[in-house]
Amino acid sequence: MIQREDFSNALSKSVGDKFTLENVISFTVELIVVLLLAFIINRIGKFFIRKFFNIKIKGGLQHERRDLTLQKLLENILSYFVGFITIITILNNFFDVKGILAGAGVVGIAVGFGAQSLVKDIITGFFIIFEEQFFVGDYVRINTFEGTVTQIGLRITKVRAFSGEIQIIPNGTIIEVTNFSAHNSVAVVDISVAYGENIEKVEAIINEYLTDLTERYEDVVKTPELLGVQTLGPTEVVLRIICETLPMRHLQMSRQLRKDIKILLDEHGIATPLSKMMLLSQPVGNTNV
Amino acid sequence: MIQREDFSNALSKSVGDKFTLENVISFTVELIVVLLLAFIINRIGKFFIRKFFNIKIKGGLQHERRDLTLQKLLENILSYFVGFITIITILNNFFDVKGILAGAGVVGIAVGFGAQSLVKDIITGFFIIFEEQFFVGDYVRINTFEGTVTQIGLRITKVRAFSGEIQIIPNGTIIEVTNFSAHNSVAVVDISVAYGENIEKVEAIINEYLTDLTERYEDVVKTPELLGVQTLGPTEVVLRIICETLPMRHLQMSRQLRKDIKILLDEHGIATPLSKMMLLSQPVGNTNV
Amino acid sequence: MIQREDFSNALSKSVGDKFTLENVISFTVELIVVLLLAFIINRIGKFFIRKFFNIKIKGGLQHERRDLTLQKLLENILSYFVGFITIITILNNFFDVKGILAGAGVVGIAVGFGAQSLVKDIITGFFIIFEEQFFVGDYVRINTFEGTVTQIGLRITKVRAFSGEIQIIPNGTIIEVTNFSAHNSVAVVDISVAYGENIEKVEAIINEYLTDLTERYEDVVKTPELLGVQTLGPTEVVLRIICETLPMRHLQMSRQLRKDIKILLDEHGIATPLSKMMLLSQPVGNTNV
Amino acid sequence: MIQREDFSNALSKSVGDKFTLENVISFTVELIVVLLLAFIINRIGKFFIRKFFNIKIKGGLQHERRDLTLQKLLENILSYFVGFITIITILNNFFDVKGILAGAGVVGIAVGFGAQSLVKDIITGFFIIFEEQFFVGDYVRINTFEGTVTQIGLRITKVRAFSGEIQIIPNGTIIEVTNFSAHNSVAVVDISVAYGENIEKVEAIINEYLTDLTERYEDVVKTPELLGVQTLGPTEVVLRIICETLPMRHLQMSRQLRKDIKILLDEHGIATPLSKMMLLSQPVGNTNV
Amino acid sequence: MIQREDFSNALSKSVGDKFTLENVISFTVELIVVLLLAFIINRIGKFFIRKFFNIKIKGGLQHERRDLTLQKLLENILSYFVGFITIITILNNFFDVKGILAGAGVVGIAVGFGAQSLVKDIITGFFIIFEEQFFVGDYVRINTFEGTVTQIGLRITKVRAFSGEIQIIPNGTIIEVTNFSAHNSVAVVDISVAYGENIEKVEAIINEYLTDLTERYEDVVKTPELLGVQTLGPTEVVLRIICETLPMRHLQMSRQLRKDIKILLDEHGIATPLSKMMLLSQPVGNTNV
Amino acid sequence: MIQREDFSNALSKSVGDKFTLENVISFTVELIVVLLLAFIINRIGKFFIRKFFNIKIKGGLQHERRDLTLQKLLENILSYFVGFITIITILNNFFDVKGILAGAGVVGIAVGFGAQSLVKDIITGFFIIFEEQFFVGDYVRINTFEGTVTQIGLRITKVRAFSGEIQIIPNGTIIEVTNFSAHNSVAVVDISVAYGENIEKVEAIINEYLTDLTERYEDVVKTPELLGVQTLGPTEVVLRIICETLPMRHLQMSRQLRKDIKILLDEHGIATPLSKMMLLSQPVGNTNV
Amino acid sequence: MIQREDFSNALSKSVGDKFTLENVISFTVELIVVLLLAFIINRIGKFFIRKFFNIKIKGGLQHERRDLTLQKLLENILSYFVGFITIITILNNFFDVKGILAGAGVVGIAVGFGAQSLVKDIITGFFIIFEEQFFVGDYVRINTFEGTVTQIGLRITKVRAFSGEIQIIPNGTIIEVTNFSAHNSVAVVDISVAYGENIEKVEAIINEYLTDLTERYEDVVKTPELLGVQTLGPTEVVLRIICETLPMRHLQMSRQLRKDIKILLDEHGIATPLSKMMLLSQPVGNTNV
Repeated sequence: MIQREDFSNALSKSVGDKFTLENVISFTVELIVVLLLAFIINRIGKFFIRKFFNIKIKGGLQHERRDLTLQKLLENILSYFVGFITIITILNNFFDVKGILAGAGVVGIAVGFGAQSLVKDIITGFFIIFEEQFFVGDYVRINTFEGTVTQIGLRITKVRAFSGEIQIIPNGTIIEVTNFSAHNSVAVVDISVAYGENIEKVEAIINEYLTDLTERYEDVVKTPELLGVQTLGPTEVVLRIICETLPMRHLQMSRQLRKDIKILLDEHGIATPLSKMMLLSQPVGNTNV
Repeated sequence: MIQREDFSNALSKSVGDKFTLENVISFTVELIVVLLLAFIINRIGKFFIRKFFNIKIKGGLQHERRDLTLQKLLENILSYFVGFITIITILNNFFDVKGILAGAGVVGIAVGFGAQSLVKDIITGFFIIFEEQFFVGDYVRINTFEGTVTQIGLRITKVRAFSGEIQIIPNGTIIEVTNFSAHNSVAVVDISVAYGENIEKVEAIINEYLTDLTERYEDVVKTPELLGVQTLGPTEVVLRIICETLPMRHLQMSRQLRKDIKILLDEHGIATPLSKMMLLSQPVGNTNV
Repeated sequence: MIQREDFSNALSKSVGDKFTLENVISFTVELIVVLLLAFIINRIGKFFIRKFFNIKIKGGLQHERRDLTLQKLLENILSYFVGFITIITILNNFFDVKGILAGAGVVGIAVGFGAQSLVKDIITGFFIIFEEQFFVGDYVRINTFEGTVTQIGLRITKVRAFSGEIQIIPNGTIIEVTNFSAHNSVAVVDISVAYGENIEKVEAIINEYLTDLTERYEDVVKTPELLGVQTLGPTEVVLRIICETLPMRHLQMSRQLRKDIKILLDEHGIATPLSKMMLLSQPVGNTNV
Repeated sequence: MIQREDFSNALSKSVGDKFTLENVISFTVELIVVLLLAFIINRIGKFFIRKFFNIKIKGGLQHERRDLTLQKLLENILSYFVGFITIITILNNFFDVKGILAGAGVVGIAVGFGAQSLVKDIITGFFIIFEEQFFVGDYVRINTFEGTVTQIGLRITKVRAFSGEIQIIPNGTIIEVTNFSAHNSVAVVDISVAYGENIEKVEAIINEYLTDLTERYEDVVKTPELLGVQTLGPTEVVLRIICETLPMRHLQMSRQLRKDIKILLDEHGIATPLSKMMLLSQPVGNTNV
Repeated sequence: MIQREDFSNALSKSVGDKFTLENVISFTVELIVVLLLAFIINRIGKFFIRKFFNIKIKGGLQHERRDLTLQKLLENILSYFVGFITIITILNNFFDVKGILAGAGVVGIAVGFGAQSLVKDIITGFFIIFEEQFFVGDYVRINTFEGTVTQIGLRITKVRAFSGEIQIIPNGTIIEVTNFSAHNSVAVVDISVAYGENIEKVEAIINEYLTDLTERYEDVVKTPELLGVQTLGPTEVVLRIICETLPMRHLQMSRQLRKDIKILLDEHGIATPLSKMMLLSQPVGNTNV
Repeated sequence: MIQREDFSNALSKSVGDKFTLENVISFTVELIVVLLLAFIINRIGKFFIRKFFNIKIKGGLQHERRDLTLQKLLENILSYFVGFITIITILNNFFDVKGILAGAGVVGIAVGFGAQSLVKDIITGFFIIFEEQFFVGDYVRINTFEGTVTQIGLRITKVRAFSGEIQIIPNGTIIEVTNFSAHNSVAVVDISVAYGENIEKVEAIINEYLTDLTERYEDVVKTPELLGVQTLGPTEVVLRIICETLPMRHLQMSRQLRKDIKILLDEHGIATPLSKMMLLSQPVGNTNV
Repeated sequence: MIQREDFSNALSKSVGDKFTLENVISFTVELIVVLLLAFIINRIGKFFIRKFFNIKIKGGLQHERRDLTLQKLLENILSYFVGFITIITILNNFFDVKGILAGAGVVGIAVGFGAQSLVKDIITGFFIIFEEQFFVGDYVRINTFEGTVTQIGLRITKVRAFSGEIQIIPNGTIIEVTNFSAHNSVAVVDISVAYGENIEKVEAIINEYLTDLTERYEDVVKTPELLGVQTLGPTEVVLRIICETLPMRHLQMSRQLRKDIKILLDEHGIATPLSKMMLLSQPVGNTNV
């Protein structure tokens, strides 16, 4: 990182040597050539990647989710590769890059440890793809962030939230992944009825309603189940219903169930629980009870 | 990682040297051969693994939970092994892989530390299987996530939650494992009665109900126990019942107990506790009391 | 980790060399022999361990909690030892294990650091046993998990919770251990009485009840103590009682005390505190006060 | 770091040697020359950077967000580069900088590890720019801080919050980035109506209002959707509306929707939910219920 | 860690060589001798340690808290020392212990780093004793755990909580120590009076009571101080009293103060604060106010 | 760190050798000379630093915030520099400082790693100053602490809180900096009105008041904006106003706005929201509803 | 750490060699001599340290807070120094201390890393004293613990809390220090008045009271300021007063202000805010509103 001249003369001499007009022009020309080459190679590479996937699809070898993920990944790898070669070429004009990377002195320690999270990002990224943890288009929760995967890159993964924002997560910090698109989802609906109502009757009404639900709503995969009394409060009895739906349709389905059952219970005159309080009258003259 | 030519000529020369038409074609052919070979070996390997387990089962040497776990694990190891050989073969066209892995310069430090969590994953994965911490099909809690184990791999474990989503957990981050399927579960049911009720009488009613529970519900392993007064509030007395059930049947059983006891106490006219408040009248003209 | 042939020929040559029919058969035979030997040695070892403890017990040298712990530990060490030898033997067919373990290149760093938590587990495990922090059968809290210890292994400790699930904790992550079985427990019972009651009188009633408690309940080790006024609220005075009991009997005893004192105070007509509120009347026409 | 003379004579001798009048003057002159040179080079460099971007824009090659980001970045890199050379030149008068950076003794370990977060900052900074995670002007959330990006530097990123303060974040600590400006935003509006109202009627009123919203407000990208019953409480039914808007216009739009629907529901006489409580009368003489 | 024979023959040869009957018997005999010797040395050592402290006490050189701490520590160091020699002796039969400890290959890294927390425990333990942070018998808070110290060992510290359980804390994790037994404690008592009461009068009553407290209760070290109005709420004025007591007697003393002052204020007719609420009447026909 | 003599003779010999009367006197004299020299150099240095800034200011080259920061920093660097030379000189009498700093044995590892946070402090401190993150006199939030910067040193930064206390923060732990003095601040004022009020009318009243605010209060930079309905509750409608003010004047300005608008709304008879509750009468004889 | 003999003979031979009667006696004698010498040197050193500070004070060179801190520190350094030499001397009888400290094998890594927090403690301790972050006697908050500093040692700092307990904090874990004794403190008092009161009038009353406060209470440094309306609730208007006091007198002063203003507002008949609630009557026969 440090040129081997005497540093007290650094600016006047060594940097002066480097910054002659001749060198600056030669470096500028080289820089432009390198950037142009990088730009062209990147374009050509992307062209062939798309061509390949088109041919593959025409050849009937299509795996929808996997192909989209792979195509984006290959383009991503290509741009990193070209960018990496370009940066090294440019930096090489100023520093002894080879020497720094091979040595293990102070600079080596700092660079080696500083770069370890970069290496971890790439290794983890490789395994996410190899193990097919999720594909582009899946609805996932990564760490504390939920949304639809829009890109799985070599170093970062991009997820778009329900409310539109893009979350960019380095692969190395992806520790716990929850994939909501791999299996059917389950809607959980809790229904509160007043404590005084006949539970058996309420259960009968709800069970009757649930029997033909798979026919009425196509998102429902199998007949929902009324699990029973989830909580027993002083003013309310909470009944729980679970309903298996197509992946990620459970939120919409639980809204539908809530509305239907609310209307149903109103029709049968089942009361909803209210807060209740018993008021006691205070005996006159006794201020401390 | 860096080719030993002068980098200022990197794109024009060394990369140029590598990217002659001849090399690109030869590399492409090799790539296809390698990928095809990997695909075929993977298929053959999986075929033999399944064959083996079929023979084992026919031979009467079946251990249900263990066998399923082992079969999935062997397939997993096979695919990692083939994938590993394939990646190394491909990377070798670009980098001096052997040199990097043997050396201990800057790149070595970065790769070595970046890969340490990968090694930890594999070591921990090995011990999970060797120590039989859990099998495929068990209901477990890993860190903060609960669900049914669907795969125990060399590097990751997959768990499916009650509500359908798949959680993918690197083995190295599995610190505390709770296995719910290894033993009987215990349902804990708290019953609140009004403060004024006779506790002895309530206890008698509940105890009578509990005596023949093992006969009525097959999930109940032994006669539940009424522990006694858990909390003593101003308006309620909370009684706690514990009930040992078959593994993972405690949630359903506690719903049943809540319903049964609610109906039972209603029949005996035991009141449920209500919020109570004593209202005091304010003397006229005294605004600060 | 990487065979020293040219990797561009890896699959066609080196792997080909290794995967000749002859090698595969020879390896398979060896594998079966090794696994069988491991199985037999494990069985014989366990047989002798049990024999030894039987002889020890017959010889009158029994230390109940310690023996059970030790026996399980020895079986555990044996299985690790046999497993370790087996794994090394199998791996040796594929990699230069000796070279990897001796070298300190990239792979060495990754393995060394990845394995450090394994070493830490074993060291901590050794000290848990040597320092007799807890035995099999003790009721403990480890980190945030409470339960009865079922096994103390070289690498992991197993704890069974009250509600039946098994918690598996790597020894290296055991930082703070709380052992509830080593000493007598203390039940803490808080009794709320209405603010207007005579505290001296209530204290007298409770103290009288407490005097002969050691005779009535055998779990009570010495006469409980009424500490005094713990909190002084607007509507309640909280009195605290502490009661030393046999280890882990404090939960059941505090339930008993709560029930007894509730009935006692009801008999003496001591009122329980109620929420109280003073309602003020709003002067007509003044909407902003 | 330590001059190789005997330290017991350090002040009297070695420092004395260094602090002769001649040396101090020579150092002061050199210092002024170096600082002046650094100042001039910095100015010239910035002049050329701005010139270049002006030419680029005139040449019709403008990418608005990207150009502003790049220009600020180049100026930032220039000032770091000049500052770095200057500091090294000055320090070189006191310490054997080359020797320290090359060696790996105690000082080397301390400097190498102390500087690793600096290296990490620069590496992460490079990737933020290369991967176009966000540009100057974007509204982002970085870790726990939200605001508009004002500068992306080599080592730090500056974000200005809504309320005016500037947040300065080292690039290495940027773990999770959320970019709100990359896509349309979604306004989520929850409407509570009294439990007794007819849900179907309320839904019809709201749906009618929503149909022509894209025409009335230009921020609305497509017709909002009334999702249905989000929550079902004892006194209220909550309906949820989602509305896709232009990036970062969702907050203003949700305020507008809330106001419009409030007036709309008032016109149709739909009641808003109130807290309700049922009061029970206490039987005389029974103080414990 | 790995014997230098060819591992493919490991079980059949090298292990076979080691596990000849002769070796097993010789090892068993040696094992018994070593264990017996360790047992005897341990006993003798403890005998001399106790003897020494008895002589020291008889010689009038007693420092109560320090001696108990030191005696337990010496016994603890002795048992570690004997245990350490024993373990090394046994392990030496299987591994090349000397070689592992001297080398710095993969195994060395793993062991070195795995053992660093052990070294940290011992260093911290040494300083706890040397700096006399606390003695056996002191009431302390270590990290989040409070109790009486029962043992300060070389590696762990044992603390017994008020409720009887034993907490075992590795010395290296002891970061913040709070020692309650080193100085007098301070009881803090907050007294709430109704907002309408005359503060000056209440302060006079309490101050009069506090003046002769040191005479009535021997735990009180100096006359308590009435600090003044701590909080000013709508319905209550909170007055704070602080009272310096003997170490760890503040809890009992604050209970006493609460009871005394409660009775005192009742006698003087000072009202306790009640929740107050102003009810407004709703104008007829106006449902939206 | 350890003198190379035999340690068993350490006290009697080597220390004895060192602690001859002659050595002690010579060391004491040297110590006094070194301390005096350090004191004098420090004074002279500070004198010249202040002189320089006086000349600079007279020469018309003043940058107020930057100069104060720089002057304090230079004094700080001077005192560290002198202190460092002094300490090394003193320590050199006891230890082979040069040898320790050059070597990389056990002591080297401990010192190198122990000192890494010191190096990090200095590096971060340098960048805070170089990047002009904040100046002496700015109001900032550093990590969780807010206040006015009073000193930016090489190793620590001092911040004085609003309530007078000084916070001392090592530069290396400064991760996220928020600078409130760099830009105008924004006051956010939320106004609650009763649900039944006409929103359009309230908005008109507030908007009229806001139009000429820049003229009335000089802290207000531009006409505040009434954003609209922020929340829609059952009993209240919350309107939000934002008001850009001079840096750090937003707190005082929002107090002024709250007071003005409160008086304004009272004048126009706009009601403030009150909690409302609907009371239901309980049918006689039905205790369970 | 391990003697170079064959360990299988460790107990019988090498330990035997060491534990001959002759060695044990010689070691015991040496031990006693070393301990006595350490005790005497420690006493003499402390005597001279106190002497020196007495002379310094008599010589008129007193800096109160600094001198007490320095004296305690020097005694602390002396005892560490003597203790260190003593321990090394004793350990040297058992281990090859020099060899361990110089080598860098497994034991070296473990010791080096285990000791790094010790080195960090000493470095941080040095800077706390050098930078005069706080002195003995100051009231500080260190991390989460508040109290008066009683000792600043080389490795630990001791702080005594208000309630009497001693907190012992290793210097290396001192990250954020807040010093309350360096500057004047500020008392913040919030006064709630009923919503209907005239704010201008209340402000006038309070402002009149505040004008001559500096004369009445000597703790008040300058006339307190009434900032204005802090919060605007439905039933209360909160006014904030700030009052600069002498260091650490703000708590007592805010109690005084609260009491004075409470009496003042009562005299002027300013009402305190009460909770208010509007009750609505339920139309008959409509159970769902």
